[in-house]
Amino acid sequence: MAPIIPSEVDVLIVGAGPAGLMLALWLSRLGIVTRIVDKRTDKVFSGQADGFQARTLEVLDSFGIGERVWKEANRMFEVSFWNPNPDGRIQRNNRAPNNVVGLSRFSESVLHQGRMEGFFLDGIAASYPHPANPAHQIKVERMIIPTSLTIDKDKVDDDDAYPITVTLRHLSEEEATPTQRLSNFRDGLFRSNLAGDDVASTIEKSNGRKDVREEVVKAKYVVGCDGAHSWTRQTLGKDFEMRGEMTDFIWGVLDIVPITDFPDIRNRCMIHSASSGSLMIIPRENKLVRLYIQLTEVKAGGGRVDRSKITPEMIFKAAQKIISPYKLDYHYCDWWTAYQIGQRVGDKFSKLDRVFLAGDAVHTHSPKAGQGMNVSMQDAYNLGWKIGLVCKKILHRNILSTYELERKQIAKELIAFDHKFSRLFSGQPAKNVMDENGVSMEEFSKAFNMSHMFTSGMGVDYKSSALVAKPPEQPISKCHTKVKEDQATVHSQAQSTPSLATNCKPGMRFPSFQVVAQVDARPWQLHHKMPSDGRFRLVVFSGDISNPARRKVVNDLGVWLSEDVLPRYPRIMLSPGSDPHGGVMKFETDRYPSIIDILLVHTARRDKVEILRDLNDIYHPFDPKLGWDYDKILVDAPSYHDGYGHAYEGYGIDPKNGALVVVRPDGYVGLVTSIEEQGWTEVEKWFRGVLRSV
Amino acid sequence: MAPIIPSEVDVLIVGAGPAGLMLALWLSRLGIVTRIVDKRTDKVFSGQADGFQARTLEVLDSFGIGERVWKEANRMFEVSFWNPNPDGRIQRNNRAPNNVVGLSRFSESVLHQGRMEGFFLDGIAASYPHPANPAHQIKVERMIIPTSLTIDKDKVDDDDAYPITVTLRHLSEEEATPTQRLSNFRDGLFRSNLAGDDVASTIEKSNGRKDVREEVVKAKYVVGCDGAHSWTRQTLGKDFEMRGEMTDFIWGVLDIVPITDFPDIRNRCMIHSASSGSLMIIPRENKLVRLYIQLTEVKAGGGRVDRSKITPEMIFKAAQKIISPYKLDYHYCDWWTAYQIGQRVGDKFSKLDRVFLAGDAVHTHSPKAGQGMNVSMQDAYNLGWKIGLVCKKILHRNILSTYELERKQIAKELIAFDHKFSRLFSGQPAKNVMDENGVSMEEFSKAFNMSHMFTSGMGVDYKSSALVAKPPEQPISKCHTKVKEDQATVHSQAQSTPSLATNCKPGMRFPSFQVVAQVDARPWQLHHKMPSDGRFRLVVFSGDISNPARRKVVNDLGVWLSEDVLPRYPRIMLSPGSDPHGGVMKFETDRYPSIIDILLVHTARRDKVEILRDLNDIYHPFDPKLGWDYDKILVDAPSYHDGYGHAYEGYGIDPKNGALVVVRPDGYVGLVTSIEEQGWTEVEKWFRGVLRSV
Repeated sequence: MAPIIPSEVDVLIVGAGPAGLMLALWLSRLGIVTRIVDKRTDKVFSGQADGFQARTLEVLDSFGIGERVWKEANRMFEVSFWNPNPDGRIQRNNRAPNNVVGLSRFSESVLHQGRMEGFFLDGIAASYPHPANPAHQIKVERMIIPTSLTIDKDKVDDDDAYPITVTLRHLSEEEATPTQRLSNFRDGLFRSNLAGDDVASTIEKSNGRKDVREEVVKAKYVVGCDGAHSWTRQTLGKDFEMRGEMTDFIWGVLDIVPITDFPDIRNRCMIHSASSGSLMIIPRENKLVRLYIQLTEVKAGGGRVDRSKITPEMIFKAAQKIISPYKLDYHYCDWWTAYQIGQRVGDKFSKLDRVFLAGDAVHTHSPKAGQGMNVSMQDAYNLGWKIGLVCKKILHRNILSTYELERKQIAKELIAFDHKFSRLFSGQPAKNVMDENGVSMEEFSKAFNMSHMFTSGMGVDYKSSALVAKPPEQPISKCHTKVKEDQATVHSQAQSTPSLATNCKPGMRFPSFQVVAQVDARPWQLHHKMPSDGRFRLVVFSGDISNPARRKVVNDLGVWLSEDVLPRYPRIMLSPGSDPHGGVMKFETDRYPSIIDILLVHTARRDKVEILRDLNDIYHPFDPKLGWDYDKILVDAPSYHDGYGHAYEGYGIDPKNGALVVVRPDGYVGLVTSIEEQGWTEVEKWFRGVLRSV
Repeated sequence: MAPIIPSEVDVLIVGAGPAGLMLALWLSRLGIVTRIVDKRTDKVFSGQADGFQARTLEVLDSFGIGERVWKEANRMFEVSFWNPNPDGRIQRNNRAPNNVVGLSRFSESVLHQGRMEGFFLDGIAASYPHPANPAHQIKVERMIIPTSLTIDKDKVDDDDAYPITVTLRHLSEEEATPTQRLSNFRDGLFRSNLAGDDVASTIEKSNGRKDVREEVVKAKYVVGCDGAHSWTRQTLGKDFEMRGEMTDFIWGVLDIVPITDFPDIRNRCMIHSASSGSLMIIPRENKLVRLYIQLTEVKAGGGRVDRSKITPEMIFKAAQKIISPYKLDYHYCDWWTAYQIGQRVGDKFSKLDRVFLAGDAVHTHSPKAGQGMNVSMQDAYNLGWKIGLVCKKILHRNILSTYELERKQIAKELIAFDHKFSRLFSGQPAKNVMDENGVSMEEFSKAFNMSHMFTSGMGVDYKSSALVAKPPEQPISKCHTKVKEDQATVHSQAQSTPSLATNCKPGMRFPSFQVVAQVDARPWQLHHKMPSDGRFRLVVFSGDISNPARRKVVNDLGVWLSEDVLPRYPRIMLSPGSDPHGGVMKFETDRYPSIIDILLVHTARRDKVEILRDLNDIYHPFDPKLGWDYDKILVDAPSYHDGYGHAYEGYGIDPKNGALVVVRPDGYVGLVTSIEEQGWTEVEKWFRGVLRSV
């Protein structure tokens, strides 16, 4: 049966790279009617972005595709710094861990972008058939380009309207293939920032065609994930132009299977040669190694560089020179490219909260810090559930303004980081302490080590908003950039008491520790109980419920939640793929779960607790077809085979006090408050500001 | 392109259940021309066998499909014992761990057989295209039944001959569907041992057909994995009849989503009621629970039972009675069956070492101990590489006799265990210490706990043979059964020195501990460096190679291996799926690895070792297209993020002495000897007895 392609969609995504696919994955899990179109004939097969932050792996894992990356990718645990010795010969100065120990169960890893795109497609397929919309299934539609976009401003506040009209043009195979490919010469630069924009020329070329096929799509939301030359951004007008600057630094990239006597070839290495430029080694999957090579012999001279001078041979010779006296050769080259270092960011991330920009469409920078694909995917991860739950009329529409609030800050931090780091790495090493033009190797090494929180993706700290209840004394989080006050949107009425959970910071990602299941002693990463299925989580850290007083607190809370909170808010239909670590639900029920998922983490001895006897039904909800739910009660206790997670210690919670933590559908902490009655008010205020009531 | 179905095959497998599929998987990895036929129209979709031993998970993991089971299966960590209290009401007497801690990285798990069969098919597909035979691919051919088998005895010792002739009949859809299915009533007994053999009747029925389609296949080897009613076994004649006995105990099985207030429903439970029989609870994936229910109201009376009396309702009522006063109900029933407890085993596992029997075809017993599917798969796992490497002319043909030697012993141990355990569980609890007819609950609980080594699959200890060099004082391992001397085949000329590696016992499975890679500090389970790809491993435990004296020992060994050992033995072409934890090899080389894979595990500080400078090339072999191999040198050291494996301690090796361990392609220890020159002689003798030289 051919899929039905709707001409009225909730969401139209332009571009099927990492940002577009992440967004499509989210929307597939939520059962949102979505189309995703891409101008190219096919996905990427080699090269391109390859670095995965630990936080990205956590996010992918929440959709059930993280462990596939984790298994196939090369994990980078160590970094070596090689600098010139007094004779000018490179030598290893230092070796250091490449990740902060204990920050995440994942570490920085590398795998080529095409493989990742394949995993996304599998993840999308696993969402179907979605009970909310059994006939619909998202498929990437290739060789399609938008040619016009209009927004009916009168309808932007109407929940049921489709205010956006987009014309889509179906390209021929030839039109969708980059010119460089047609010439049968694999030009590594065709997706580089040294290449021009080919969208305008593609449109123009196809204008001449007699049988040009176009269709009109009405959409509630459009998201431009269409890369650095974003057609969507250009269409939105001058306000959306990106600002920033280019440097004169040109770098080349080679993916090769190296044949070398350089001893650290399977380590991440930062090599500063005395006068031939710098080289970064990124060991990859399948015996591949990526080399980022500074091209000191090509000059940008203030403008664009002459692309014809850049060849793989020339890049490789530069690498040989830097790594000398070690020998470097190769038989297989998988991919190559070159780029000019520069940073640009847009001022506006959305128009009327109906058209959004994500990823390279709104911020670009140099690839070396392994951030690009990650920040792009995180943009989409931040946006997807918000659009999806607004479409489902679960979330207030004004929540959409938090996208720009939250992600522009990250983009600016990224630009600032890249600006600093790329200049330190491209600069010539200082010959001695008196050499003011050179880069001090101590400074470089220190900057690198300081950057771990940022480059792991764990440093993200979203500002105060309806979604983030900061404590009273700290209404706006400190950040590296200034945001206009009018963007700060609705502030949460609720206030956090961060001292109750010192490592669950409102605005930051809720960390994961191992706990064990009350019913069967199975160890779980708490993250695995919080998949990306669109639900908010209220995590009840109760302390020792074998103590009758504590048990009363927990059960009183349970009564309040079941009588005053859950009935007020909608239920949600979950996709078959929604619980990737808990198994695919095979049996149907008539009842769907609340949008607020309640997890209890206690510290009592497991054998002192009988859940049906001791605990309010809210902690083990009953279903007439499936019986009680045994999966929501967890214990901070040692496991039989896998050690002890020490979760309360990890979260910074005193078992004597306990805590309530509200976690957003994207895994960021929204509220930390007390489990006692004074906390209930904050919980009520927080959800009231975010969710629409039924 | 339609696959070419050869009429001359190296191996013909009859039956595509767990044993047949495991064998097909092995042979697919080795690139052996194989056909696998099955009489049924399709694979199993629910129910059937569901228990996975830890050892089975290790084996599946060595093919890259273990983690899929591990993720989807329900893992059982705890077992509860419920017995009658003095008033006759059941109560929990005891809760205990369900697995021995530290034995394996896996624990006993349950997932239905059909899912497993799907993983096998994926694992087989991942083996192709195999460089040794790019045009061939194993596919399960369904609705096919053998009708005749003859062996040309004159050719059994000819490597190149196809001494076996088999006639295969292609069935119609109707003929291949069990009668019970045709009647539109899902009869849970149709694969039970209460059902009769339908092969003879199927053949007879199809004899009448005018257009009966048959083909003749010539095979080097035939393996009957065709279940308890094995046509292959019956065809081999009277010598192959199974012997054993049936009991009067009848048990029912239900897979349901229970609705119950029984508090341990998500634990494995052994319930002895006072007088209503016994019940075992096996919590499963997807909210399912399997109940094994003793049916005290059906009598076998020495003969076969009246099947028509056994219905799901009647089984369920028996369960309700046993679990009373707790309430038990259900809405969904996924599968049901019933069986009569009995144990039977064949005396001969092979004819002329050309036709073999595996799994239920040669031993049957009751399912409750979760052993059946495991022992069947392990039979095939033991046999697959032996047949495969004999076909490749790498292994001496007489090695094939070790299959019966090794697996008949295990079958007999299984029968003895099942005999004891099923009677203890089916017996009525003793009312008091004076009740001699009753079963003592202490005795039962003790027997259960004693059985862990056996039921985990870790207790397997193969006898002395060419493949297992036991120490001189212990030529035949102690085992529960007597084996005729003439079966003991060629004994290894080599002798182990087990004191050098006290936890690597010749004949037992080589355990796995975490080590870290020398080149990049990545933690690895040592098992992940030893996938099931057909290679033997020589694991060099060198101790501290930063000590020049130790380094000299290791490098002297390296010179000897590269000059005197490896050149003598063949190389092997590996399938694309052969290294499931190391990534799929994307780049071709002209050199294939030696059948003997050398791994070095040292205890020096990582930063004191430079592998190209310090170590003989044999430990990092050079390939002109791929450069040096960086993957073979491992360190017993702490990892950055995942703790310390303490591998030397785990293997029982003193770093001051070191050790050489030869591990067979199926992961069992063949030889433990010294790393110094006196050990080399043993290594030489061992391989000479096993491998053909080039």
